Amino acid sequence: MTCQSKKIILDCDPGHDDAIALLLAHGNPHIELLAVTTVVGNQTLEKVTRNALAVARIANITNVPFAAGCPRPLVRAVEVAPDIHGESGLDGPILPEPTIKLDPRHAVDLIIETIMSHPPKTITIVPTAGLTNIALAARKEPKIVERVKEVVLMGGGYHVGNWSAVAEFNIKIDPEAAHIVVNEAWPVTMVGLDLTHQALATPEVIEKIAAINTAPAKFVLELLEFFGKMYKKAQGFTYPPVHDPCAVAYVINPDLITTKRVPIDIELTGTLTLGMTVADFRFPADETCHTQVATKLDHAGFWDLIVDALQRIGEVKI
Amino acid sequence: MTCQSKKIILDCDPGHDDAIALLLAHGNPHIELLAVTTVVGNQTLEKVTRNALAVARIANITNVPFAAGCPRPLVRAVEVAPDIHGESGLDGPILPEPTIKLDPRHAVDLIIETIMSHPPKTITIVPTAGLTNIALAARKEPKIVERVKEVVLMGGGYHVGNWSAVAEFNIKIDPEAAHIVVNEAWPVTMVGLDLTHQALATPEVIEKIAAINTAPAKFVLELLEFFGKMYKKAQGFTYPPVHDPCAVAYVINPDLITTKRVPIDIELTGTLTLGMTVADFRFPADETCHTQVATKLDHAGFWDLIVDALQRIGEVKI
Amino acid sequence: MTCQSKKIILDCDPGHDDAIALLLAHGNPHIELLAVTTVVGNQTLEKVTRNALAVARIANITNVPFAAGCPRPLVRAVEVAPDIHGESGLDGPILPEPTIKLDPRHAVDLIIETIMSHPPKTITIVPTAGLTNIALAARKEPKIVERVKEVVLMGGGYHVGNWSAVAEFNIKIDPEAAHIVVNEAWPVTMVGLDLTHQALATPEVIEKIAAINTAPAKFVLELLEFFGKMYKKAQGFTYPPVHDPCAVAYVINPDLITTKRVPIDIELTGTLTLGMTVADFRFPADETCHTQVATKLDHAGFWDLIVDALQRIGEVKI
Amino acid sequence: MTCQSKKIILDCDPGHDDAIALLLAHGNPHIELLAVTTVVGNQTLEKVTRNALAVARIANITNVPFAAGCPRPLVRAVEVAPDIHGESGLDGPILPEPTIKLDPRHAVDLIIETIMSHPPKTITIVPTAGLTNIALAARKEPKIVERVKEVVLMGGGYHVGNWSAVAEFNIKIDPEAAHIVVNEAWPVTMVGLDLTHQALATPEVIEKIAAINTAPAKFVLELLEFFGKMYKKAQGFTYPPVHDPCAVAYVINPDLITTKRVPIDIELTGTLTLGMTVADFRFPADETCHTQVATKLDHAGFWDLIVDALQRIGEVKI
Repeated sequence: MTCQSKKIILDCDPGHDDAIALLLAHGNPHIELLAVTTVVGNQTLEKVTRNALAVARIANITNVPFAAGCPRPLVRAVEVAPDIHGESGLDGPILPEPTIKLDPRHAVDLIIETIMSHPPKTITIVPTAGLTNIALAARKEPKIVERVKEVVLMGGGYHVGNWSAVAEFNIKIDPEAAHIVVNEAWPVTMVGLDLTHQALATPEVIEKIAAINTAPAKFVLELLEFFGKMYKKAQGFTYPPVHDPCAVAYVINPDLITTKRVPIDIELTGTLTLGMTVADFRFPADETCHTQVATKLDHAGFWDLIVDALQRIGEVKI
Repeated sequence: MTCQSKKIILDCDPGHDDAIALLLAHGNPHIELLAVTTVVGNQTLEKVTRNALAVARIANITNVPFAAGCPRPLVRAVEVAPDIHGESGLDGPILPEPTIKLDPRHAVDLIIETIMSHPPKTITIVPTAGLTNIALAARKEPKIVERVKEVVLMGGGYHVGNWSAVAEFNIKIDPEAAHIVVNEAWPVTMVGLDLTHQALATPEVIEKIAAINTAPAKFVLELLEFFGKMYKKAQGFTYPPVHDPCAVAYVINPDLITTKRVPIDIELTGTLTLGMTVADFRFPADETCHTQVATKLDHAGFWDLIVDALQRIGEVKI
Repeated sequence: MTCQSKKIILDCDPGHDDAIALLLAHGNPHIELLAVTTVVGNQTLEKVTRNALAVARIANITNVPFAAGCPRPLVRAVEVAPDIHGESGLDGPILPEPTIKLDPRHAVDLIIETIMSHPPKTITIVPTAGLTNIALAARKEPKIVERVKEVVLMGGGYHVGNWSAVAEFNIKIDPEAAHIVVNEAWPVTMVGLDLTHQALATPEVIEKIAAINTAPAKFVLELLEFFGKMYKKAQGFTYPPVHDPCAVAYVINPDLITTKRVPIDIELTGTLTLGMTVADFRFPADETCHTQVATKLDHAGFWDLIVDALQRIGEVKI
Repeated sequence: MTCQSKKIILDCDPGHDDAIALLLAHGNPHIELLAVTTVVGNQTLEKVTRNALAVARIANITNVPFAAGCPRPLVRAVEVAPDIHGESGLDGPILPEPTIKLDPRHAVDLIIETIMSHPPKTITIVPTAGLTNIALAARKEPKIVERVKEVVLMGGGYHVGNWSAVAEFNIKIDPEAAHIVVNEAWPVTMVGLDLTHQALATPEVIEKIAAINTAPAKFVLELLEFFGKMYKKAQGFTYPPVHDPCAVAYVINPDLITTKRVPIDIELTGTLTLGMTVADFRFPADETCHTQVATKLDHAGFWDLIVDALQRIGEVKI
């Protein structure tokens, strides 16, 4: 892991795990957070955007542009996940009123302008939500595809589904957008459920975060408490899988996550398989293969990053 | 027909019939042409954009912004129609070098800004190409849907196909975009093949245009000559159907075209029917129905409009 | 029209119009009815089979084997049409207890054995229901495909649907079976809704049938009365379209029905178009084309055949 | 494992592993082989039927009816696997001329009659090929569904594909038939690639079979040699997975194979996922769940069964 900072755009729909991903991106010294963009997903665009701004206040993120993007998927109707994230999209903690203002630009334009104004191959896009914004950006300005360094997305699953037997929420809510993103020629790392179901917030993890004893750490604990209850009820998990920070963690330190190069495509017409991230493991990937999937997580290393980020964020008075 | 001018945005992919649609929109005194936007379709974006600018020079269109839009459909691969429009997309006449410059904005932004800067319900969008630009505009700025007056599009066919047994080119090359456009709540008039196959350039029509005896009229004759040959060869037509100006003609004078209110949707998963504009004629349309299809053309009245527009454009020295 | 008799197997799901088709086949002197087979469709297999036997008694059909076939479609769930045919499948008249017994063979085996035991190219299959039995027969004994003379089926519609915007009941309830039947190499005449919506039971027709004044004619009147009411209520028809006898009429006298040779295939994956009979009218059919669609009915000639058949059946005491 | 014999019908398409499955079924003392039926699959119906009869001679199977079934899948075109099984479907050994004659009945009728003539819940159907015959039998005589004990099929894979990224050959060649079979209410055990890729013919296995030193054992060795070469070349396997006998082994001794109760369905409309056996592992299966998947094989125990069967078959003079 080099000491050079990794420039990222975080495209998210906070969302409990998105909030933690944002804290990780902000608190980690190797990440330079260029922009935060929001998109409909775990809740409506209005709610997730408000949540993103609230998290910015909680962590004292002040110099990063936040922009709102698409209020609905490309082709399908809006589908949100209140059974996991509650009515606000970030139920559990009491959220403060945001203090920073939204960037006036559309998320799609902020993404395009940020990428085009930086040197080639320096920016990683980290989507932790449906891929509507990213797909629209790639269609509106095809040049970004060559110019970004890579896309590291949380979504999908090669052997696991949560929004159907074989499809994951972020992909299934906008499968056409996901189809666009994985079929563009940029490098794509899919951090899917196969990986993130290893990122469980175990009691040891909770204890470490509790020991930090700051307002942002307390906020994370409240998030995990609510998230844990909902995941137990809706999907039978003993400890909740904290998906989105895994994508940020991979950008910070790829050694924490084992990957496998494999072609991926998105099923758009299946009756039972709509939105499945179909990975073809039958043959060794050839050199044209620009996609890989995350397979194995260093659980301790991952949570150490989160704890470290919270420690660096330190106390924030609201 | 009122004397008040009809403000339109023409979204096109010239294309022989697009070129004539542009001349009609420019030459007709009841149309106020606010913007011309281009999109991949009959040929690549680069070619159709160059063609649009060349037509602007031929007709001396100088005060209208022209902007280029999407170089590829939302989800599908690019599919062009050289067997109808030739390699340039406007084969036949010799095209002059364009003299006006492209607007620097993306077509999607020009469309959005034009609509949002005019009073509500004053602008009609007239797409005569694949619907990629229009769909992207509706997704990037959902407010345009309420704000436009209507969408009058050339595309589809309720009983006729040309790019498959039951699908038409403009819809089939980007069915997801078409799905977005017809499912938004704005009024949509579909001027499909059922109608445009009535808009044949018969010898009488050719004769009338020849009698105008100007450079733009000669340009139209050369377009029709090439178009006629290609349509005869590719689809067995005796006289070529001149699709796109029909949509403009409907905006100028709806009395020229009979319509029927009927729900329309776009087939996205059919093996034989991908991109079909499925119209449901079984029951009387209810009041929520915001779509209608064009059924019957006043052939003489339609061509009179074209001839009149060419006469008003008059001679143009290049 | 030759005087040689046309041998047919009638595969049906009575059903009001199926009942009339059966009376026409029985009463017409040019038809030799070799077998009547039943299949789930307008109602359950049990009900339509009972109905077929009741019609046999009403018309005194005694020397024809009747066999029951498939109680459900190949892949899809059972879908019946009580809103058109009532709970019994033949609501309206009071049905007598059947007196003839079912043939012990499965319909599929009766079809196969009948075809294989007659000289090649002598038997026409006339399906007026879902195509489950016929498809199964073709799969179980592929040799029947070469051996039958042709298949004249009531079903589908190239521009008209009744069970969806673009699909007809007989095809939509078992689209996979229809796919099998139209893709086998035998000659297929599709007598679809485009044709049968011309076969309206107008007041003049009713009057002529009433004048016959026999029990079977009275039975037909009661059928048409009920059918007419249901069609008015469910689909807004002024006079009911009497679909199934059209297929029998075509076998009796092809001059009564104009046809057009055109490739047909069945849509199996469409979201809006499942079960559509996709006909490709774009080009002249080539010599490999073994399918044709019925386009225009001689209304008077058609109903004359029905009246004539009822007159020949004469009075039947029950 | 009880000493009571297990009555089975083996529906197969020999095929190297089908041949070994047949030898296992014949040689094992706990299996009573009631019928062997063939169906298009690894090769044409003609070839696999001839192969089945040749294996009968090799193993001296004389008192079991063999019947040929469907020469093509329900809806799809025929697809065979010469890259795995060679042109004959059983390339490698020299095959003797069959000495027993085919049963004159169609496989579908033999299956139905065998099941209906035995007491309820006594017969297990073991399909090791595409499911065309079994699906047709269930449609022609729905009563067999309640009457069989269970269906133990080789096919599919919940996380593994071989005929596409996510579909297995036996299912993908006739997905509609598979859809019929897994959706009927009988108990279904899916012995898929997840399991059979554990059934590798390792050098130790080969050695044990070689030590038997009989003509049938030598035949198996020749099969495995050819199969091994083809699997290495086509799919990169070090040792070939011997799929079909696993299903027979499960019938003989379920303790050899771990299973998990889970709902299964077949994808019929997916572009990338056609024929996938979609298993839903998200929740504990409820009591209506009649399907289970095989997950873990006792490799040694499995091959011991094969060796034992070959020893019991002993020497056969041809």
